[in-house]
Amino acid sequence: MNYLALRRQALLRALKTGGQPADSVLVTHPANVTYLTGYTGDGAYLVLGAKHAVVVTDTRTEEQVKDECPELGKDGGLDLHVRGHDASTPQAAAAVLTKAGAKAVAVEAARMTIAELDAFRALAPKAEFVPVNGAIEALRASKDPGEVEKIKDAIRVAERAFKMFVATIAETDTEKEMVDALEHYVRRCGARCSSFPPIVAVGERGALPHAVPTARPLSEGSKLLVDWGADLTYKADITRVIRNPYGTLLTRRNKAERTAHNLDKVYMTVLAAQDAAIAQLRHGAAAKAVDAAARKVLAAAGYGDYFTHGLGHGIGLEIHEAPRIRSNSDDVLEAGMVVTLEPGVYIPGWGGVRIEDDFLITRDGCQRLTTLSRELEPAPPTA
Amino acid sequence: MNYLALRRQALLRALKTGGQPADSVLVTHPANVTYLTGYTGDGAYLVLGAKHAVVVTDTRTEEQVKDECPELGKDGGLDLHVRGHDASTPQAAAAVLTKAGAKAVAVEAARMTIAELDAFRALAPKAEFVPVNGAIEALRASKDPGEVEKIKDAIRVAERAFKMFVATIAETDTEKEMVDALEHYVRRCGARCSSFPPIVAVGERGALPHAVPTARPLSEGSKLLVDWGADLTYKADITRVIRNPYGTLLTRRNKAERTAHNLDKVYMTVLAAQDAAIAQLRHGAAAKAVDAAARKVLAAAGYGDYFTHGLGHGIGLEIHEAPRIRSNSDDVLEAGMVVTLEPGVYIPGWGGVRIEDDFLITRDGCQRLTTLSRELEPAPPTA
Repeated sequence: MNYLALRRQALLRALKTGGQPADSVLVTHPANVTYLTGYTGDGAYLVLGAKHAVVVTDTRTEEQVKDECPELGKDGGLDLHVRGHDASTPQAAAAVLTKAGAKAVAVEAARMTIAELDAFRALAPKAEFVPVNGAIEALRASKDPGEVEKIKDAIRVAERAFKMFVATIAETDTEKEMVDALEHYVRRCGARCSSFPPIVAVGERGALPHAVPTARPLSEGSKLLVDWGADLTYKADITRVIRNPYGTLLTRRNKAERTAHNLDKVYMTVLAAQDAAIAQLRHGAAAKAVDAAARKVLAAAGYGDYFTHGLGHGIGLEIHEAPRIRSNSDDVLEAGMVVTLEPGVYIPGWGGVRIEDDFLITRDGCQRLTTLSRELEPAPPTA
Repeated sequence: MNYLALRRQALLRALKTGGQPADSVLVTHPANVTYLTGYTGDGAYLVLGAKHAVVVTDTRTEEQVKDECPELGKDGGLDLHVRGHDASTPQAAAAVLTKAGAKAVAVEAARMTIAELDAFRALAPKAEFVPVNGAIEALRASKDPGEVEKIKDAIRVAERAFKMFVATIAETDTEKEMVDALEHYVRRCGARCSSFPPIVAVGERGALPHAVPTARPLSEGSKLLVDWGADLTYKADITRVIRNPYGTLLTRRNKAERTAHNLDKVYMTVLAAQDAAIAQLRHGAAAKAVDAAARKVLAAAGYGDYFTHGLGHGIGLEIHEAPRIRSNSDDVLEAGMVVTLEPGVYIPGWGGVRIEDDFLITRDGCQRLTTLSRELEPAPPTA
């Protein structure tokens, strides 16, 4: 049996033993449809039961579904239902459920809207719809080797794009221009697009963890924070802070941005915090313990109040997925999970340092999937 | 009273007279929060009642909220609640609702997930949550003059980017490279990004209305379909088909793509279909009648079966919003609505023609907001 069919079987097993058993599943969230069918676009649903697995879509995406779902039409594989122009995809999915005699249909509680649930209940009145929270996402948390390779591919593209970016920035570039240039390099290196809008923050603007790009030029800061990723269906997520390679031009910038704190000291502390977390990252570890390990290093150096977000999160088909690595997380880490570790220190008026890498959790520890240097100095253009 | 406060008052009035009256609203969908507060990012909620209007957010977006919401802290305007790191935004919003004594809280049925509703019911057990479908979206359908200007700005950026694109494409460019180049020009002309992933389809691939870009080079088709837009918070949406400016190099392409149908004839028919719809577009018209006017022209020319989607949709803070202009729409058009009209003909093996412009509906008719030529020949680089 192929890996997609195995995933669908695992889902049905999990739903049978849930609090409120279901004989069928209606999957509407695109990343979950991708995980269970191979189709990477949107606009298609999966209707799944013990005896049926049907992709419901329309003529706009029919070709792409056929290209991407090798099981289509094979015994025991997927069936395809292409709706007519007189029906909506929810109407067509409800008809497929009714025809299959579905009695208890699990739906994605964290993805389906209230209005969608009402509509499905009206369209398939003989079925009972059972909202289930995170069943597919729980399966997705642990990656198989093929998924790890796809995440590595995304990381390689993101890293290559970053090297192009560092090699080509100039002191007159604004944050907005640098964001756009990075987006272009990520695509040029093979990604569909960035996995989220890149953050490029000059100088003290790095203190805003979600900085929106402005007209501030690179010349007006002694340091540059870059948080970016690549979307190759599977996604990468990396952050680096570099010293401004045009630092000698810094004549008119506010003094606090350069001198209120020592960049090297803050940087080395954040790096030590990441290393402390890496030492805890393994199969069986409590996510909150990994977060605590990084937080302890920052607190010991006096930066405890300046780390204002969680330490990390899973990556895969989505840029934020299970597990959550934060102080209030109850997640337990497992071999096969791929997560970010991204400690940071954000000091208003001075700026911020965040170092974010991607890791595969293993039985004995972890493997860093990112290969970019974690040094503060940017690599020379020939790197 | 400023226009944002007027919008919030109109919403509260609409909810008082709804089937299930509500004294408060919890707004979580980013475009709706933007419409009612001015804040253009995500991650912030609006808690609204007769005596309170509170933006609930966290430290990551606090600065941007302060920058973009001029009413903050003024009498009768908006209040700001920045949550601590020990609470989630839903928890903080529930606390604000409870403190305000909210009894019946409208929530966005078409935006809030089942799990979110369950969580709010648990977090604020004294309030009754009332899912309401499309109340804010209905207000957003008719644009005020300031919104029309913002849509025009987005259209100008998209048009300028398209001229750059046409001036710089080369015969060896692939669909993927052309998509990425167009994205870069849209940003370079001032947009945050494209308003949706651009479609650039070479030759017969134009028959796929949602074509995903491939490695097919421009040289392998006699025509090029481009569907793109610009996101300046308000959004533009345009489609053009141009004859391949490198058509003389077409030596190895399949004959059907060039000769199965006459491009000029199909193009002029689609243009006539758009003109027929334009003639019907006015305040008070039934959306389905506008769709029918275009469909009738295509059917009369024998292309009725090849127009496989609705005629148009509203644009604004989102790329698809009310009204819907399709054969099964019950929407009635109103002055102030801004809509696309995008008839198309898609013939497998030959390709597709779609012509999409953006229109402001007025009392007496409509105004075309797009200014790009609707001719089949691309403008020369100096245009």
